[in-house]
Amino acid sequence: MADKKLVEQITPMGEDFAQWYTDVVKKAELTDYSSVKGFMVIRPAGYAIWENIMHELDQRFKASGVENVAMPMLIPESLLQKEKDHVEGFAPEVAWVTEGGQKKLEERLCVRPTSETLFCDYFSKVVKSYRDLPQILNQWVSVVRWEKTTRPFLRTREFLWQEGHTVHATAEQAEERTKLMLEIYADISENVLAIPVVKGQKTEKEKFAGAVATYTIEALMHDGQALQCATSHNFGADFAKAFNVQFLDKDNQLKPVYETSWGMTTRMIGALIMVHGDDSGLKLPPRIAPTQICIVPIQQKKEGVLEKAYELRDQLRKSGFRVKVDDGDKSPGFKFADCEVRGIPLRIEVGPKDIEAGHAVLVRRDTREKIQVSFDELAEETGKLLEQIQQDMYDRAKTFLEEHTSSATNMDELVDIVNTKRGFVKAMWCGCRECEDKLKEMSGITSRCIPFEQESISDTCVVCGKPATKMVYWGRAY
Amino acid sequence: MADKKLVEQITPMGEDFAQWYTDVVKKAELTDYSSVKGFMVIRPAGYAIWENIMHELDQRFKASGVENVAMPMLIPESLLQKEKDHVEGFAPEVAWVTEGGQKKLEERLCVRPTSETLFCDYFSKVVKSYRDLPQILNQWVSVVRWEKTTRPFLRTREFLWQEGHTVHATAEQAEERTKLMLEIYADISENVLAIPVVKGQKTEKEKFAGAVATYTIEALMHDGQALQCATSHNFGADFAKAFNVQFLDKDNQLKPVYETSWGMTTRMIGALIMVHGDDSGLKLPPRIAPTQICIVPIQQKKEGVLEKAYELRDQLRKSGFRVKVDDGDKSPGFKFADCEVRGIPLRIEVGPKDIEAGHAVLVRRDTREKIQVSFDELAEETGKLLEQIQQDMYDRAKTFLEEHTSSATNMDELVDIVNTKRGFVKAMWCGCRECEDKLKEMSGITSRCIPFEQESISDTCVVCGKPATKMVYWGRAY
Repeated sequence: MADKKLVEQITPMGEDFAQWYTDVVKKAELTDYSSVKGFMVIRPAGYAIWENIMHELDQRFKASGVENVAMPMLIPESLLQKEKDHVEGFAPEVAWVTEGGQKKLEERLCVRPTSETLFCDYFSKVVKSYRDLPQILNQWVSVVRWEKTTRPFLRTREFLWQEGHTVHATAEQAEERTKLMLEIYADISENVLAIPVVKGQKTEKEKFAGAVATYTIEALMHDGQALQCATSHNFGADFAKAFNVQFLDKDNQLKPVYETSWGMTTRMIGALIMVHGDDSGLKLPPRIAPTQICIVPIQQKKEGVLEKAYELRDQLRKSGFRVKVDDGDKSPGFKFADCEVRGIPLRIEVGPKDIEAGHAVLVRRDTREKIQVSFDELAEETGKLLEQIQQDMYDRAKTFLEEHTSSATNMDELVDIVNTKRGFVKAMWCGCRECEDKLKEMSGITSRCIPFEQESISDTCVVCGKPATKMVYWGRAY
Repeated sequence: MADKKLVEQITPMGEDFAQWYTDVVKKAELTDYSSVKGFMVIRPAGYAIWENIMHELDQRFKASGVENVAMPMLIPESLLQKEKDHVEGFAPEVAWVTEGGQKKLEERLCVRPTSETLFCDYFSKVVKSYRDLPQILNQWVSVVRWEKTTRPFLRTREFLWQEGHTVHATAEQAEERTKLMLEIYADISENVLAIPVVKGQKTEKEKFAGAVATYTIEALMHDGQALQCATSHNFGADFAKAFNVQFLDKDNQLKPVYETSWGMTTRMIGALIMVHGDDSGLKLPPRIAPTQICIVPIQQKKEGVLEKAYELRDQLRKSGFRVKVDDGDKSPGFKFADCEVRGIPLRIEVGPKDIEAGHAVLVRRDTREKIQVSFDELAEETGKLLEQIQQDMYDRAKTFLEEHTSSATNMDELVDIVNTKRGFVKAMWCGCRECEDKLKEMSGITSRCIPFEQESISDTCVVCGKPATKMVYWGRAY
């Protein structure tokens, strides 16, 4: 039995979802509050998840031709102001450096909230000819946005992310890159993090400051609220014109470049918690879990028990699994609960009786199912089981998403769904900003995306009744 | 023949070393100036070297028990001020954030110049009992120090680094960790970067602000100036006391923890340039080179040439080498010079005649030696050759270090060496600050370190003639 002492400190999800989230973050030791208001410390258990996400993303980025760079963390005010829509979007929420080396600076520098302006400035220097294109760059950094209310991973004044920035010779190539990066994000979400997503385009209202088009992947959390997992922006030639990024084409004409940017953040750790977690804590999909297997020795003081635990660990490590032995001086019950809180996908129990019988007991974190496996077959069975857990976690999340996606053809229906069932609501839209604003006002929901996979639910806009142009996913969002 | 057009743009080292350095950085496309004064853009070719350094360090860190985390990038002024020596050391060179979200902040926040204060603050919250020790943490971030004059990699207002911070139950464990990390830095420098170093301790004057002891590895550049490659600090219990980091020991007594910190920075890329480079550009040791082999097709428009180049590339990649084909529309001469500027350790030339004869021509970057190798033996010979280049580059740098390390027993001798031969000067020292200051004043040199490997050169201090206590490496430094 798992020890209740650890578990009881987590508020049940059904009682208070926000508190459950905070408890899980704390008990799984993912973050800690810092002495810097609105900023978080990402602890080893949290950072190890981010390292795995980085690794998965970076591999795919590089395979698609991305090169990493490092831009300055500070941006002069004059540079930020070069693109009008962009500065309007970000200026209200930046932090300003005004003093350096004991002197007041002549020009304020903001801590980067995002780096389009720096990349454009750089491109304007290095791009001269068609030979210099495309430039497909990315950086792994943190950014600062002066949020008023904060929550670990979901909304903090500083967060970690990657920001990719590219320039291309044609609009088509920029569009292709924007979509390609969204596919990579969807691949990571679904096939590594076991988080099913809806792919689509943001409305004019919800798109990125300065972009021509923003694509997004949207996931659904346990409480029925949506979470934007990653975005990919096509800027067309607007930024390039503002920053004078031009190239001499093969036909000897000076032309502007076409630009994109795309990012995924530590927010995904919040998504992992809220898509997979339960009242006992975190539940990590095996492909992303820093520790996939925790071996808990039973009666570990008895001769041969710890030795066997280490032997199994070494054997499983050789097979490529991420394994640890919990050989601390706590009770097995405490250790079981600890494995659960931390979301380790598989626990292996091994005691004197097991050793005598030549088997171990495997316990799945996701279903708590117990499976006896003989030592001979341990590596093979563990591999199969981890794959099964990964698949089952995705399937459960997919079922949840489907069960919490409804259709509405009129406002009454829509408001009722939002207030009772929550989740995504699919509804038709005329395409105008006023209807979007009205929906937000009446029900607190926003357009999550215009999905790539369109359906015709009805002929008229759910708000104004005029002819519909698009089907939209609506929902409350983080 | 290498194309002179590219090469001629590099100022010869003997003519103007500082300009040679700047030219190499620019021509090898390692960095670019940014629109943010004193800050650099690290371009793909530069960042790829840093990625390899990070990978080598991180692997060794993790094998020694280090866990990665992320601390806030901003530090409240009150937190920075908690440790007196530390704040005195850093306050003059920090950048201050004074406004956030369009409001003046109640308390100034500095952009981290280093993060001892944040780590101590964190340790004070999570360390309660001996069970919580040791904490062996590290972060990969950038830091800001408001330097007046800057040079790419060597001195910039922002640089990338790792900063490790640990706390331990005993002074012995802290000392052991401090020394262990220095060994890891020396290992990377010598065995990966092919940069021989002198290991030792900093004097009181040169040690880190707030440390009890600072250990260092020091290397010698082509111009005879020293470069501090990495440092490891033992803080004793001073920081812990200032931040009230205490733990309940097994004997039920509350005790302070013992702290260490250690770091290596993007400065190492500057060291790579200045230890190995020549008048044709960069020279990268094979173990750190992002591209180890560049295949240059000769008469690439002739049938079968490009195909053969790609075939060799794929074959060499399968053997684990980092290879590219330069199939651009420039001449082979231009490509040869380009490979040299970028410091690619090995160039493989393959043209119609080579294909007919069943061999390729391998050209070493370090010696320009040409070796004909049959296609059958290419992978094996390439592996041997890269190992040989790595070893030879280290040996040459080691010889240079030895030839530029002199001994002096009196001031006249010492000043003469500093002004003519440059390099390191070994000389005895009484141990007092006044003599150190006087040496700096008279000859512009500083103590680089008190080497772990002590020798007795004479009985008296080279400055004051009083009895000597230590042998010290002195030199001009970056």
